[in-house]
Parts: sequence; structure tokens; C-alpha cells
Amino acid sequence: MTKREYTIKQISKTNKKNYENYVVTRIYHRLNRSDVKFITQQYVNRPEGKGHALTDLYFPQLRFHVEIDEPFHKKQELLDIDRETDIIQATNHEFFRIIIKESLEEINDQIDQLLMLIKSKIETIENEQKWEPWDLEKEFQPSYFIKKGYLHVDENPAFRKIIDACNCLGQNYEAVQRGWFKSKIYPNHFLWFPKFYINEEWDNRISEDGNMIIEKCKNPEKFEEWYKGVFSHDVKRIVFPRSIDNLGFKLYKFVGIFETDFENSSFENGVIHRLVSKSIDISGEK
Amino acid sequence: MTKREYTIKQISKTNKKNYENYVVTRIYHRLNRSDVKFITQQYVNRPEGKGHALTDLYFPQLRFHVEIDEPFHKKQELLDIDRETDIIQATNHEFFRIIIKESLEEINDQIDQLLMLIKSKIETIENEQKWEPWDLEKEFQPSYFIKKGYLHVDENPAFRKIIDACNCLGQNYEAVQRGWFKSKIYPNHFLWFPKFYINEEWDNRISEDGNMIIEKCKNPEKFEEWYKGVFSHDVKRIVFPRSIDNLGFKLYKFVGIFETDFENSSFENGVIHRLVSKSIDISGEK
Repeated sequence: MTKREYTIKQISKTNKKNYENYVVTRIYHRLNRSDVKFITQQYVNRPEGKGHALTDLYFPQLRFHVEIDEPFHKKQELLDIDRETDIIQATNHEFFRIIIKESLEEINDQIDQLLMLIKSKIETIENEQKWEPWDLEKEFQPSYFIKKGYLHVDENPAFRKIIDACNCLGQNYEAVQRGWFKSKIYPNHFLWFPKFYINEEWDNRISEDGNMIIEKCKNPEKFEEWYKGVFSHDVKRIVFPRSIDNLGFKLYKFVGIFETDFENSSFENGVIHRLVSKSIDISGEK
Repeated sequence: MTKREYTIKQISKTNKKNYENYVVTRIYHRLNRSDVKFITQQYVNRPEGKGHALTDLYFPQLRFHVEIDEPFHKKQELLDIDRETDIIQATNHEFFRIIIKESLEEINDQIDQLLMLIKSKIETIENEQKWEPWDLEKEFQPSYFIKKGYLHVDENPAFRKIIDACNCLGQNYEAVQRGWFKSKIYPNHFLWFPKFYINEEWDNRISEDGNMIIEKCKNPEKFEEWYKGVFSHDVKRIVFPRSIDNLGFKLYKFVGIFETDFENSSFENGVIHRLVSKSIDISGEK
């Protein structure tokens, strides 16, 4: 995918909503910076367990969201979303609201203010020498994260392929076929690539705040073996659930390191894993 | 309709076509002038009878069209269109082509060139003191044309209501219910508001070059009376056919003054009227 295709696809997600299309294209064309990544219609988990929301425009490098408020067109509450949908953690993110007013001038004035704010944010980051220009080809590559030296949940790090996540953590594979790997680097850790949506064998899910995973095996023939297996080795799990981003591409996003809570797990309710670390050091892999 | 509603509606016509939406919104937002009228998806009659075409973006004040060429997505030839569709005469109009290239930069560079051209055109008109800022509320008003002093086919003058066209030509009506009026000002002239699409009573049409109208009565009970009537008084017709603009609003557009060609008219083929003047002087109505 080129930046052209990416950009057209992101903008086209706003097509059916006329005011959203107007506002998003105005922000995009007047900002006019191809080094700034943008995502339209991004699901976010609001901080402090306030549930998830859909923001109309998201700038990941700035951790900044734009919400477009159409008083005449009430948007539907988006409560039921596919469990495979990529939902990012919005810890320390900022939100800016554009309100659709009677006159175009009033809308445009708000966008002008927003653009000034965005530009000053970029400038601040640039002055701190921390600006990373958007690079579509490198952004999901292991090398990008290895150079950085860590993965942190708050930055929503993600990979396009299981093998990329594995190799970022020192597995050095040439091909992978599974979703469960014993770490070669981190003692007593496993890499886990679960699906947090119901499928034939599993019904695994993560809590909205990202602190708890419930793992359930649905296959009666495998259930007992799995349950015993979990209890027989007390391991930490480095978790990369599979999700689908807003353009329909697969994403394996780092959601943290989890430990099994044996006390609260049960055959009926499933096995509970609790978040013990939001980050992992990968600087040894340089 | 406000400029906000107008703008959103025009842009939304490009929504289903992603590259068109990108290019049109970029031109619109980067030009950023609310005094410049724009129309998306405008049908035009090409000069010299080359048939009609659909242009993606039209600036009526500049008589300037933008066509967006997507090499990967061949547009369908638009040969059959509703006869009620507004088709403007593109005499002395200019056309600019944006070609969708591989990279966004190449597309944006073309748009930058286009914007420079548009701005220089506006500047030229402004320097000649001929710039008329777009005024959505006044553009179809009789007073606007009366001040101008004439109607000319090449400028595509139009009214929203029959009564406005009548009063622009000195009829001074308070209400109208018909489509055929004896002129109070121009001797031996009638004002005619035909429908150039098939309806219960009539099958009237205008040629693509705008030079000939064929009038046919479809009602067998009225046919003979109408035909005799036409031949009994040799009058000139000031013609404002009804059409529908690209947002679905009615439009009565001045298409010229016509005279009946008795020699070539027949009961079978209909009555032929030929264009004798592309303009009418309305300066007496000041």
C-alpha cells in the first residue's frame, strides 16, 4: 500500500457522512503534511474505564483526536462492535471537538484553531528532537521497534505479522504457523497471539481497560487438557492479540505482559490472566 | 439554502468516487475562497457540436472546468442522460485535466499548478474590475440580471422561478400559472417555458448545439388546434426551458430567441424553431 492508497482509503471512510468528509478533508488538505499519519474512525478505549468511543480523526504521532459533532444528525451510540476491531488505549491522549455550526465560516474558524494547535504540537515535538516522520513502509517493522528499545502499551505498538512480533522479541524465525511460542530470551515467558473474538475453539476476551484477559476453551474434547495445562506451568504471557484495523488489515498489537490469576480462575468462568507490565524491554535485540 | 448546505451538497456529489473526492476537496479547501462559486459534476455541451460531457468541477465565474482522469478506473461514457438535466453551453470555456498518478505528490503538484492558474484568473478579472463575488442569495434574482442589462446564452443565465424570468423581462406579475406569455415589452414576442423532456402532452426537445427546437404535441385531441395555432401567428419566442440542476433544483435557463421555420415544419415531424439571437437586451427594465 502506498501513501496515496492509504490516504484515499482513510478519507473514503468518511464519505457517507457529508460533514465529516468536509471537516476531515479540510484538516487534511490544509495541514498538508505527508509526514503526519492520520487515521479516520478510530476506536479508542477512554481512560479510566469509561468505555470505548469512535473518534473521527486520530493523529497517532500526536496522540491527538478530533471529534466532529453534528447537532442536527445525532450519531448512533456505538456500543456493539466486533471484538476483532482494533481499539487503541487513549491514555494521555487529547481530544478536540469541532462543532458543526450554521455557517461555514464558523466551522472553518474552528478548523483554523485546530490547525494552529496541531502545528504547535508538531513544532514542540520537533524542538525536542522527538519527531518521527510517518513512514508507511517502516512503521510496523521489527527494526523500528528494536531501534526504539521497548514496546509500551500506551504507544499502541503493533505488527502486521506474527513473525515480525516474534523476531522483534528475539525468536529469529523464518516462518511461523502457530500463536503460542516459548520465549528464547525472556525466561519463563511465552509469546501469545490470541484471537479476542469467538471462534470454533476459543472464546477469549480482554477487558475494556486492558487489565484482564479471560481465556475459555470451547472444544469439549480439548477443554480438560487445556485447563490442566494452564495450571501445570506458571508462565508469563507476552500478549499480541489479533485485531483488524480500520482499513481491514490484520494487526497484532502488544497489550502487555500477563500473569495467570489461579485463585480466580475456574473451569466454568475461564482462566483469568492479569496485566503485570505495560512494557517490555527489547533493547537487548539491537 | 445556505452556502454551508450548498457546499456540503456539492462536495457530497463526489463522495462515491474516492479520487474525485480527494481532488475536489483539495482544490476547494486550498483555494479557500467563499466568493468563488463551484459546481461538481456539471454537464456541458462542448463547442462545435462535439456532444456533451460531464466535468468534475466547474467554476462558473471563471468559465473554467476541471476534469479528473483516473487511468485505473475508466469512467463510463455518459451518453444517455435525462433530457431534463441542466446542460450548459461551454463556448469559450477552458478545461484543465488532473491526472491521477502513482504518488500523492504528483497529484498534489498538479493541483498546486491548477490553484496558481485559478488565482491568476481571479486576479485578472479583479484587475479589470469585473469580479462578481458569488452571492448565493442573489445569483438567480431578476434584479441581478436587470442591473447587468442583458441575458446572453453563453453566460448560462437562469432563474429559479418562471415569475422571476417574466419579471426580469418586464411582465410585472404577482403570480404565474402558465408557461406561455405574450410579452408586454417586446412586440410580437412570447415568453416560452417549455419542458424538454417527454410528458403527457408534449414531446419537445432542443438540439445539442442549442440552435434548434422541435415542438411536438402528443395529445391527439389538441394536436390539430395547436398546429394551426402555431401557423396562424408568426411570433418570436424568448425561451426558458425548465431543467434540473446538479443538486436537484429547478432552473429556467435562457437559451435564446427563436423563430419558427414554417418551411421545414410538418405535422409528422413537429414544428421547428430556430435560434435567431443568443442575447436579449433588458436594459430598459432598470
